[in-house]
Amino acid sequence: MSDDKSLTLALIQMRVESDPAANRAKAENFLRRAREHGADLAVLPEMFVCPYDQARFPEFAEPLPDGPTGRMLSSLSRELGMAVVGGSLPEQDAAGRVFNTSPVFDTQGRLIAAHRKVHLFDVDLPGMRFFESTTLSAGEELTVFDLSGWRIGLGVCYDVRFPEPWRLMALGGAELMVVPGAFNPVTGPAHWDLVLRARAVENTVYVAGVSPAPTPGASYQAWGHSKLVDPFGEIVASLERQEGLVLGSLDRTRLRAVRKRLPVLDQRRTDLYSIRWSKE
Amino acid sequence: MSDDKSLTLALIQMRVESDPAANRAKAENFLRRAREHGADLAVLPEMFVCPYDQARFPEFAEPLPDGPTGRMLSSLSRELGMAVVGGSLPEQDAAGRVFNTSPVFDTQGRLIAAHRKVHLFDVDLPGMRFFESTTLSAGEELTVFDLSGWRIGLGVCYDVRFPEPWRLMALGGAELMVVPGAFNPVTGPAHWDLVLRARAVENTVYVAGVSPAPTPGASYQAWGHSKLVDPFGEIVASLERQEGLVLGSLDRTRLRAVRKRLPVLDQRRTDLYSIRWSKE
Repeated sequence: MSDDKSLTLALIQMRVESDPAANRAKAENFLRRAREHGADLAVLPEMFVCPYDQARFPEFAEPLPDGPTGRMLSSLSRELGMAVVGGSLPEQDAAGRVFNTSPVFDTQGRLIAAHRKVHLFDVDLPGMRFFESTTLSAGEELTVFDLSGWRIGLGVCYDVRFPEPWRLMALGGAELMVVPGAFNPVTGPAHWDLVLRARAVENTVYVAGVSPAPTPGASYQAWGHSKLVDPFGEIVASLERQEGLVLGSLDRTRLRAVRKRLPVLDQRRTDLYSIRWSKE
Repeated sequence: MSDDKSLTLALIQMRVESDPAANRAKAENFLRRAREHGADLAVLPEMFVCPYDQARFPEFAEPLPDGPTGRMLSSLSRELGMAVVGGSLPEQDAAGRVFNTSPVFDTQGRLIAAHRKVHLFDVDLPGMRFFESTTLSAGEELTVFDLSGWRIGLGVCYDVRFPEPWRLMALGGAELMVVPGAFNPVTGPAHWDLVLRARAVENTVYVAGVSPAPTPGASYQAWGHSKLVDPFGEIVASLERQEGLVLGSLDRTRLRAVRKRLPVLDQRRTDLYSIRWSKE
């Protein structure tokens, strides 16, 4: 594997309808298009198989990887020879708990990682009240995986507001952070670009934020505006609110140049402060 | 002291010329105007007494508080009954080391805090090469002080790129972060607003970033764009590149409302990760 190999991402900003089978079919269609356009890694949005509705997550929950969505993603990633970050879906474990989980399949269709959202979305904003914790359990692990010579950190939506896990993953070598997320018309214009770009610049990493497109009539309106941000905070590729797919490539020469010019990861005052994952 | 007392800040975006005495006279003039406009706390920009030139910091260095700048700020804050964050200046300690230090004077003219820049600005960007560490020593302390019922964290310029100290100060109760800083025409448009707003939103605190105005002919051109950001990331008051002064007020009702609606400080997964100041 070449150290300087580029990696082409497809960000899939699909509308999520109420029928999981229809959402899987749409995702499959987008994944095929992503591969036709040359993607090495396709990223689906948060909760791409069912409505983003805390009351209904248990109803739509399925095991991973042996549920209908896991089987579809595994089969398709193997068939297409393309890795897939499966946005997220309500995952039910053997004990009956439900998580907001982002599964990752490699080009052989193997489930190589699964991130259970660590920070649940419990907020009470004007016009936006949402409490995931009423039906979901929270994850307890950082999620980092390697793909085609790139180390990739993974978090889901609200996780991105917390600098700690991203810093820890960057210190562990992550060069790209993938964030399936569904900000909304309140938090989206206020904070979506801000937090994606902040995590990129403070860690000098690429960040890919992938949202559903807003769906007319849905109880929760996603913000859209999926984007790939480079390690200097510049936008490599982006969408607005429409349904669609956009491609963008990681460039290790760019990553190295930014890290040489702005060596913040090396300039941390490790003699003065430390950040630790307690499970280490 | 009332728990709900507002605090009015004046952000002083002055041009810095080559003569320290002239810069002190200009700062004095701005501080008097700030008080006339009702400021409780005035903030001067980074290196407001001398050119921002790493080679010349030792030449302009002075002790604190018993140098010409410290005496001026002490006397004036007492006379005006207004607290002052004295931007920063090259501070020489008894051992002859020079720091980039931000002193804070209360309304009685007492030096109640002094932040020695912890992260020195050593970067090699296209068109922007600067190495503070060739002439400066780095500080080793977090700096938090209390004023009129508000707890305030203080850092200098490059410090703001590192989430760790700001997180630690917020967890220690800081509600306002003050950042005298001099980003430049490369880093300013790319990152100044981003890092100020990121630190505000991730910690739900006010952030005041105060820069010199660019000075024609100077070897280092500051970016300007001083601003006060609220805990939701909204801009309360701002300047562009011109020399001037702007006022903005902190509102504890607003701070509380944002923290209630977006309780990220309480939602940190302290069971999974921790951040520590090693000198604690």
